[in-house]
Amino acid sequence: MGNCIISQSGGPTSVINASLSGVIEKNLELKHYDNVYGGINGIEGILKGTIVNLSKLSLDEVLELRHTPAAALGSCRYKLGNPDVSCNEYAKLFETFKELDIETFFYIGGNDSMDTVYKLNEYAKANGHTTKFVGIPKTIDNDLCVTDHTPGFGSAAKMIATTILETYLDSVVYRQNGVFIIETMGRDTGWLAASAALAKLNSKPVVDLIYLPEVDFSIDKFLEDVKEKLSTQNNVYVVISEGLRNEKREFITKSSTPHGLDKFGHTQLGGVANYLKSILLESGITNKVRAVELNTTQRCGMHIASLTDIEEAVGAGKFAYKMSMEGITGHIAGIRRKSNEPYETEFFPVDASKAANNVKYFPAELINDSKNFVKEEALEYLSPLILGEPELKYENGLPKYFRLDYDKYKIK
Amino acid sequence: MGNCIISQSGGPTSVINASLSGVIEKNLELKHYDNVYGGINGIEGILKGTIVNLSKLSLDEVLELRHTPAAALGSCRYKLGNPDVSCNEYAKLFETFKELDIETFFYIGGNDSMDTVYKLNEYAKANGHTTKFVGIPKTIDNDLCVTDHTPGFGSAAKMIATTILETYLDSVVYRQNGVFIIETMGRDTGWLAASAALAKLNSKPVVDLIYLPEVDFSIDKFLEDVKEKLSTQNNVYVVISEGLRNEKREFITKSSTPHGLDKFGHTQLGGVANYLKSILLESGITNKVRAVELNTTQRCGMHIASLTDIEEAVGAGKFAYKMSMEGITGHIAGIRRKSNEPYETEFFPVDASKAANNVKYFPAELINDSKNFVKEEALEYLSPLILGEPELKYENGLPKYFRLDYDKYKIK
Repeated sequence: MGNCIISQSGGPTSVINASLSGVIEKNLELKHYDNVYGGINGIEGILKGTIVNLSKLSLDEVLELRHTPAAALGSCRYKLGNPDVSCNEYAKLFETFKELDIETFFYIGGNDSMDTVYKLNEYAKANGHTTKFVGIPKTIDNDLCVTDHTPGFGSAAKMIATTILETYLDSVVYRQNGVFIIETMGRDTGWLAASAALAKLNSKPVVDLIYLPEVDFSIDKFLEDVKEKLSTQNNVYVVISEGLRNEKREFITKSSTPHGLDKFGHTQLGGVANYLKSILLESGITNKVRAVELNTTQRCGMHIASLTDIEEAVGAGKFAYKMSMEGITGHIAGIRRKSNEPYETEFFPVDASKAANNVKYFPAELINDSKNFVKEEALEYLSPLILGEPELKYENGLPKYFRLDYDKYKIK
Repeated sequence: MGNCIISQSGGPTSVINASLSGVIEKNLELKHYDNVYGGINGIEGILKGTIVNLSKLSLDEVLELRHTPAAALGSCRYKLGNPDVSCNEYAKLFETFKELDIETFFYIGGNDSMDTVYKLNEYAKANGHTTKFVGIPKTIDNDLCVTDHTPGFGSAAKMIATTILETYLDSVVYRQNGVFIIETMGRDTGWLAASAALAKLNSKPVVDLIYLPEVDFSIDKFLEDVKEKLSTQNNVYVVISEGLRNEKREFITKSSTPHGLDKFGHTQLGGVANYLKSILLESGITNKVRAVELNTTQRCGMHIASLTDIEEAVGAGKFAYKMSMEGITGHIAGIRRKSNEPYETEFFPVDASKAANNVKYFPAELINDSKNFVKEEALEYLSPLILGEPELKYENGLPKYFRLDYDKYKIK
């Protein structure tokens, strides 16, 4: 027997630790590996030798970890280059794997991490290493190809739809005409913004307008849409993605660019919601606009996570473990949907090269003709993903979350 | 027997409908009134004759109402003038009361609403009317005098502390130095910002710095505080109130003014958190700052409400009902804390004139010497208010909330 090592990468989600717990739980059960090691801060931590022994965690701690949002092992935004340019990193990694007797490296992450899985596996094959590389997908953006959906998305969608339901009820209490704008994440794809359509009262969506990054955004059309709604109702509820782009496919505000700087190098305040708020106020259509940017709250709201999502995240970890036992390498745990009612899925191995570096956009055929809402069919896809509520432990009125003590479990 | 009427006013909270449900539930039990009427959009609705009959709701609907955030009867920001200037309003109100055979008017609201209760009662006494006026306090700001605390605050505090716990875990996943700023409501008082100190992991607060509106805010001191923290740790978590003021007691950004306009009349984007983000980035202390404004999400988060708060809100409604049965008028339902462990409270009648138009500030003696955090004693006061989780009904993965159909229950 040997050991395995696991790391987390990219933006955190509510359930990325659930996948981590899935691998640890499976090893507690099957003991295929002597130890499950954890690389702190993704592949960067493995390169630096910051490694903990997760097999020292008690079962209680593992189960707490399952219900703790964000990345317990820390994260990184490190894109591994090709072996010809990053040969030192490859050498260092495989040296560490050898030193720690690593049979399998599990990587939980998005596009870039699946690319790392692919590259490391190719390198291993070419250089006669036997280490296996298995990916466990996570991203709230749901933009990974091949898999039906990605762990992390369902919980973010549920958090968004719940907050929309609640802020909608809050936004309609006054008689005065008003516009409420809420901004979701999703720089390139509209899956998160589209999940706003799940928020219904008496079977009717509470949201009036949804704008996705896949659709060219026109300020004039937006003002027309809002004006038209306000002609028949007191309040208008608008959902936008942070990644809105104009017909030239440029972000509609400079603050949507990574640096958030305007052309003079000054910091831009606020995001797209605040920008559209100012446009609306200046247009004179209404003098009452509220803009809310959900920001990181939408990707770590374990207290309102989807039980379906948590269970699938754990399942993806366990399936990855199973793949590694069967000698499968260079693959990731994909999800295939078998039926919607009852909702049924199965895991299957996806070639890492197929998932990496491709983007799954929100399908054009699920967007309405006016390009300002999603079709009812989209809800058939989205609805099952937010089902079920986890039973969280509470302590002193707050969810009890797990904090991994790196010093306590450090292996060297 | 006669009827009673109830209205809601001011900013919504997660539990303002719980107080409404308390009155309706008590009447289902005791039937002291033939009908419980509801005035839509506060006192404005009663003046306009927009009134529903809440006694037509089924018990199931009343219990759903109990767990629905925001104001089911709508709200208003209407401050009733003195009788000498607003004589028409007084005449119209009492005419409506007579027409509908109203024995008691219940008003759920904050400072202004308690002032309305006081004024209407004085007017009734002076003009020989027998209608009784009873107030039910609500405000997330917790700034009402005389009462130990106010229904609505505990749930907002729990929502804030939970979100802080989760976003803290999210904010520390990368190695790079960074500052996270979260902005709470509380334009005049720091109760909401102070509740951030409740968020702990392994018994240690996760927040590093808390700035309250009661303390003069200095940009230089703020930059020093952050710099000092960053000298010993990777990440700094800052909580600020939207109402931060400088030593001249002016709001530190123009966007804190009601109109959100700068001196040229342009709309200001973003609030105080975004302003401090730009200050931090320009200072060069760090190049990684995230600013999150909780906005209205903090006052309507029923899915993470405090059970203690919900029960007290229902209790305040029931106590107000009991006061009215005993002939008490011109009073509001206050809360007196009898002990902290076990947490025990009782309701008592407070003269409306004592509660109205005064502000309960966060006590100076509970703020630390550096004026950038709250003392441990503050937690003795705050902790019990966030205890307990409600059992919400979920439908299709989302909380099932109640929407009052005005047309269905309209009385004329």
